[in-house]
Amino acid sequence: MNNFKFQNKTAIQFGKDVIDNALHDAVAQFGQNVLFVYGGGSIKKSGLYDRVMSKLAGLTVVELSDIAPNPKIASVRAGQDLVKAHDIDVILAVGGGSVIDAAKVIASSKFYDADPWDLVLDSGKRYQLDQLPVVDILTLSATGTEMNVGSVISNPETHQKLGTGGPQSPAVSFLDPTLTYTVSKWQTAAGAIDIFSHLTEQYFDRSANDVTSGMMAGLYRAVIKNAPIALADPDNYDARAALMWASTMSLNGLVNVGNINGWTVHPIEHELSAYYDITHGVGLGILTPRWMQYSLSAETLPRFAQFGREVWDLTGTDEVVAQGAIQATFDWIKALDVPTTLPGVGIVDKTHFEVMAESAVKVGRLAQAAYVPMQAADVVAILSAAMTDDDFIQ
Amino acid sequence: MNNFKFQNKTAIQFGKDVIDNALHDAVAQFGQNVLFVYGGGSIKKSGLYDRVMSKLAGLTVVELSDIAPNPKIASVRAGQDLVKAHDIDVILAVGGGSVIDAAKVIASSKFYDADPWDLVLDSGKRYQLDQLPVVDILTLSATGTEMNVGSVISNPETHQKLGTGGPQSPAVSFLDPTLTYTVSKWQTAAGAIDIFSHLTEQYFDRSANDVTSGMMAGLYRAVIKNAPIALADPDNYDARAALMWASTMSLNGLVNVGNINGWTVHPIEHELSAYYDITHGVGLGILTPRWMQYSLSAETLPRFAQFGREVWDLTGTDEVVAQGAIQATFDWIKALDVPTTLPGVGIVDKTHFEVMAESAVKVGRLAQAAYVPMQAADVVAILSAAMTDDDFIQ
Repeated sequence: MNNFKFQNKTAIQFGKDVIDNALHDAVAQFGQNVLFVYGGGSIKKSGLYDRVMSKLAGLTVVELSDIAPNPKIASVRAGQDLVKAHDIDVILAVGGGSVIDAAKVIASSKFYDADPWDLVLDSGKRYQLDQLPVVDILTLSATGTEMNVGSVISNPETHQKLGTGGPQSPAVSFLDPTLTYTVSKWQTAAGAIDIFSHLTEQYFDRSANDVTSGMMAGLYRAVIKNAPIALADPDNYDARAALMWASTMSLNGLVNVGNINGWTVHPIEHELSAYYDITHGVGLGILTPRWMQYSLSAETLPRFAQFGREVWDLTGTDEVVAQGAIQATFDWIKALDVPTTLPGVGIVDKTHFEVMAESAVKVGRLAQAAYVPMQAADVVAILSAAMTDDDFIQ
Repeated sequence: MNNFKFQNKTAIQFGKDVIDNALHDAVAQFGQNVLFVYGGGSIKKSGLYDRVMSKLAGLTVVELSDIAPNPKIASVRAGQDLVKAHDIDVILAVGGGSVIDAAKVIASSKFYDADPWDLVLDSGKRYQLDQLPVVDILTLSATGTEMNVGSVISNPETHQKLGTGGPQSPAVSFLDPTLTYTVSKWQTAAGAIDIFSHLTEQYFDRSANDVTSGMMAGLYRAVIKNAPIALADPDNYDARAALMWASTMSLNGLVNVGNINGWTVHPIEHELSAYYDITHGVGLGILTPRWMQYSLSAETLPRFAQFGREVWDLTGTDEVVAQGAIQATFDWIKALDVPTTLPGVGIVDKTHFEVMAESAVKVGRLAQAAYVPMQAADVVAILSAAMTDDDFIQ
């Protein structure tokens, strides 16, 4: 096991109706001036907007709405103007990963006097800044942003979708599974695949150890089991709760301690989202089985076999178990009723494959840092394999 | 899943030689006056004492040594005198669970003006007090105290061994697996059994959920695999590291979120330790298989079967898997080369069984809170079953 540091100070309030008693104090402890960040109209339709506002009585609330999926730097810039103009003390982010990601960069931007896109291009800059406390109410189980320092921000002008980190994870995260009852089947499936992918990016690492491998195997099994339940029965509390807590546990820094490799599938998917604005989790679901198939080799076989045994409960030779696990991964994603090919999400030709591949290799440092190092040609091969389901459906 | 709150601010520094670069600043950030708490002469023999003192150069260091296993309230009282007399700013605890447990109560006792045994009898009192920051260097993988708020303190005069909690977990914990290379086979085995028991106390809960069950299953497997490796090859870094990180992860509040039941085997073992001063982990190893055997019923069968499948990788009917898992637990403990009966640790008659059972039921609230509720007669039956190995070795 490699040396590592770990600390995560986020306070979690988990469960049904936890905002009712605890939200006011969680926000007000940090000051009077609140920037309330949210997405479209869904929290107004659901009544969550009114419920939140009633808890903010007595505080000065400024609103920033219309944060889009794959949140855009324009929203962060708008937020920067507001936190400076209104001397904001605390940000309250209500929504999914996009809203919270944007809020976390806005939180740093108060202390930066130039374009916050700089803070995305160079996360080292964010670590040198102070950061407003962020309180969030999560409405989608997926990204894990509710308990980590990361954000992913898109810049449509430059076709870039980039990750950045900051000094602090959210101060307080409210995780109420009932707020995800209204999440569509599409977004529920995409969120579950996102969690699955976070685990995969961390599980396949050359410095994996027994403790984190075992914890991840348990998280995998919880997601694999509960995603179909939540799709079939959207109001199933325990299934929604399992997905929500698994999303948090899978990306709060606990399960990758000591890891040495960077991620592979996310950087490739970020290119797809940047060029085609597809749903992140669906893109991951298309790419992941192809990445697995492409990465399986004599060298990686033992790890894929371990994956098959402890995650998918398969038995047999290493070769049989590894192949079975990759097929099982595809079958699980397919059963979530999302497209499993690039044409299925409207990417019908290979026009941008080369330029996307080159960018993914560069941004993701895939040639140096990936579990299986990759050049642009390897990424093009993975993208090409995703044009059909032929490898998985005979 | 039940509602829960979770927050744990402990900063972890994990790995070989992490104290060399980081210890000074970790301590000095809190002030000039340090109380250095440790046990017997082992850290002097190993050179750790000198290594630590060299990192404390420039700080004012007061020492409190001779903290015994099953730490006694007399040590806490001595520590209280020192933190008040020397206006201590920070406590550095170097040792195993006993040393760190004592340090955590001493940390509260600075702000209490009467006998600190009060803080053990009523942990509510500790939560109302301030607490000095505790920095620790762990030398034994077992109790998990390095990342939680709990302590267990013994009072030989009253035959009491009681748990207490405080407001803060350690501020910084240094976990260097190489510092456990010199831990004896006896203490290594006892520590591994302690971790196994912490998982068991939390795994068998009527509000268990998929996420924490899966994470615990992974931690169980890491301990089951690595304890025999560490016994056979004491300098095996990865095995020592797995035990160390598993001990921390198993009792830092993460794997029992939403649980409703209290613990059972620990309160019973605390009676044994209080009356006979036996090694805590060895006592747990003697009691655990008997507790399992006694608790298996039609009602609990599904959970024991799940335990058999996801922890011990057993297959078959629920009944076969559950019985197999209990036997496997016994066999694993036996293979660690520790006594598996009460006479094996010198408890040769049933003199105190009744009074210990009554105290365990009262202190542990076993009739109200246990996974399988127990009266004194049930505890006596478990203790009696532990007089021989007949149930497990034919």
